[in-house]
Amino acid sequence: MSRNKYPEQTLEKILDVSTKLFIEKGYEQTSIQDILNSLSLSKGGLYHHFKSKEEILEAVMQRRAQYIADMLEELIKSVKAENAKEKLKKILYHLSTDARTHMLNSVLTSQVSNPYFVVGGLKTVVNMDAQIIGRLIEEGVKEGSLQIEQPVLCAEIFLLLLNFWINPALFGRNYEETEKRLNYLQSILCTLGLDIVDKAFIDNVMSGYKKMGAFEEGV
Amino acid sequence: MSRNKYPEQTLEKILDVSTKLFIEKGYEQTSIQDILNSLSLSKGGLYHHFKSKEEILEAVMQRRAQYIADMLEELIKSVKAENAKEKLKKILYHLSTDARTHMLNSVLTSQVSNPYFVVGGLKTVVNMDAQIIGRLIEEGVKEGSLQIEQPVLCAEIFLLLLNFWINPALFGRNYEETEKRLNYLQSILCTLGLDIVDKAFIDNVMSGYKKMGAFEEGV
Repeated sequence: MSRNKYPEQTLEKILDVSTKLFIEKGYEQTSIQDILNSLSLSKGGLYHHFKSKEEILEAVMQRRAQYIADMLEELIKSVKAENAKEKLKKILYHLSTDARTHMLNSVLTSQVSNPYFVVGGLKTVVNMDAQIIGRLIEEGVKEGSLQIEQPVLCAEIFLLLLNFWINPALFGRNYEETEKRLNYLQSILCTLGLDIVDKAFIDNVMSGYKKMGAFEEGV
Repeated sequence: MSRNKYPEQTLEKILDVSTKLFIEKGYEQTSIQDILNSLSLSKGGLYHHFKSKEEILEAVMQRRAQYIADMLEELIKSVKAENAKEKLKKILYHLSTDARTHMLNSVLTSQVSNPYFVVGGLKTVVNMDAQIIGRLIEEGVKEGSLQIEQPVLCAEIFLLLLNFWINPALFGRNYEETEKRLNYLQSILCTLGLDIVDKAFIDNVMSGYKKMGAFEEGV
């Protein structure tokens, strides 16, 4: 890559290559020089966009967070359902089968040993994604399809538990231990008035983790 | 520190100094040389115990986790109460006022920008602390003071939410936003059959965070 004729394309390429390297080699083990080598870019070309490796990591996580938020917003707009509760169930089911989500989950699961990604994910799930899902729950409360006291806080807890507590790779759990927690999550969500997780969703989540090789064996 | 006459003392000193440096400077910014300088220890003296900085971090977090687990076990043995539910309430109240917990929480809060500590904490809270509290809830279920379907899983969710979801420094929240979440946590725990969080506990947790300067201002 020679001169900086298309700065936005350069930016995207830096983020693509950095994401790939952070996942394959790990963040600590990736140097600025590794990123430059993979791009055939000069130091000046990179420093035009980023002052440090920390800034690149921040931008990589920011872009990933925005991608997920956009996907959720798009699903809320495009999915058709009789009410907000049914829409939420359809969206969850869609996410549990969608190739893009599967790819994103694979990245998260491959990155459980990278604490930067885990903590970055924790923050965006609670501070971004749960706000979007919370607004859909709020709609359900207004129209009467859902009875939830605090829609946004309930969404925060739901997504935090689903994305982190349930993750077998993060806590070193086997198939049975993970399934037990998903079933309990379903049961407590029901008790709280958020009856949106069903057997088909649980099966999809479990087979997704299985494909990724996320389970500990013989624990 | 000269020759290695008292290897266990040396080990403890390495961990003390490393903890202090990791907190003050951050893990990334602390070098093995910084640790050696603070101890007047030779490289050989340190490599006798640890092969890398990662191994030191692992041992620092392991020691902290064991300290908290021991404290919980000790409280379960020493606190007197009419039943397991009352004992759990007393232990929570004690933890919310105790100087040791306050110190540990200050460390956690000062370390929210250090993802190694956050993820390490996440794992030990769920895989160690919740198992201990879960056994106490199990006792309560046996004797009839508590009605909980899955004592250990319920303890995992409770401690995960209390230690992480509630933490204002981790998610950049102000006083009101944090208090709202603590009140909601109390309400959902009640719904789940774990009526153990009261106003006094919430007030203690809030004033603890205030003393640490954990709240975002003017959000």
